[in-house]
Amino acid sequence: MAKRVVDLSLEIYHQAPTFSPDPKCGILVYHTIESMGYNITQIIMSTHQGTHLDAPFHFFDKGRTVDKLDLNKCVGTALIIDLSQKKAKDEIGIEDLKPYENKIIKGAKILLRTDWDKIYPRDEYFSDQPVITVELSRWLAEKEIDLLGLETPSVHPQDYAPIHKTLLKKEIVIVEALAHLRELTQEEVFFAAVPLKIKGRDGSPVRAFAIEGK
Amino acid sequence: MAKRVVDLSLEIYHQAPTFSPDPKCGILVYHTIESMGYNITQIIMSTHQGTHLDAPFHFFDKGRTVDKLDLNKCVGTALIIDLSQKKAKDEIGIEDLKPYENKIIKGAKILLRTDWDKIYPRDEYFSDQPVITVELSRWLAEKEIDLLGLETPSVHPQDYAPIHKTLLKKEIVIVEALAHLRELTQEEVFFAAVPLKIKGRDGSPVRAFAIEGK
Repeated sequence: MAKRVVDLSLEIYHQAPTFSPDPKCGILVYHTIESMGYNITQIIMSTHQGTHLDAPFHFFDKGRTVDKLDLNKCVGTALIIDLSQKKAKDEIGIEDLKPYENKIIKGAKILLRTDWDKIYPRDEYFSDQPVITVELSRWLAEKEIDLLGLETPSVHPQDYAPIHKTLLKKEIVIVEALAHLRELTQEEVFFAAVPLKIKGRDGSPVRAFAIEGK
Repeated sequence: MAKRVVDLSLEIYHQAPTFSPDPKCGILVYHTIESMGYNITQIIMSTHQGTHLDAPFHFFDKGRTVDKLDLNKCVGTALIIDLSQKKAKDEIGIEDLKPYENKIIKGAKILLRTDWDKIYPRDEYFSDQPVITVELSRWLAEKEIDLLGLETPSVHPQDYAPIHKTLLKKEIVIVEALAHLRELTQEEVFFAAVPLKIKGRDGSPVRAFAIEGK
């Protein structure tokens, strides 16, 4: 199979949805070919708009900021775990990841496929997502993985604080709102989700992608 | 040599400079740990802030928009051409790239090292950059390369329109305001500069990076 790049990201567009307390998304025409000779756009959005990643500073004032993240944690071989049988509000626990334990080791990049991106952009996308248990976040933190990627907009709509803190304290990169993991045919792929180099802040929208083939 | 990821991007920060007619950059604290339990940020910026890429729609109303770019053009093996001897306002012409002509073929990704990022963020960064000649843009367009990457903020501060149009008509991805190419030790590297998936618009800030080693 020839190499191919697979897009794993949601679209960013004017009034694209966000979590209710977060900054809203505006994609505004600024200059046009008619007025200035070229099209250019003003973007107004949250650091957590659409497919994005979280840095420790998101939950810790003294935590590492997004511009200081080690890109080696954001780029490399990732394992896709198929949890597409999970339904709305189902829990994803340690027992779901146990069969893959031999690959969930220090430095691993783990992507959880739930196909929840199919629900986007309906309101239930944010309210009814399958959730990570606090126990699973502790288990992953002990394993010292590099990166956890999810097709849900957050780790948990209610217990987000303890789960984020458990993962971010160990400097695990959390990538949220991934999409299209079902298009991958390999269990392990080259994966990249790198943040914009936003100085001193908490996260960044990303264009996540994978490469399959040899 | 072990693999290592090398960052090739400028920082994005509050009031980071742009070309004078373009939207300005605001990085605004939105919620804090004290007020809401987490830090989150509102970003206001141009699609051409800092290290960024241009899609055909930047100069052609009927051109391909940034969300529709083929990611295979944005990711893969790239050739770095060392032009670090070029000074302010020097021209970069066909004769400078001729020695590399056997590698400047259909689908090639070409990165021109000028070390001009050392001048950032002074005003001269925008006004006095080494420039691509119109003739070189035609030569590269005929070669049908995939991507042209530059350490300058644009292709040319005055002749930007004909050069952009020549390259974008052929759907060559233009990556501008790269940085740190001098940190690469290999002439060919794995390179990625993927746009945010901004629907229907002209360009995107990117976090460009390279991977060196085996």
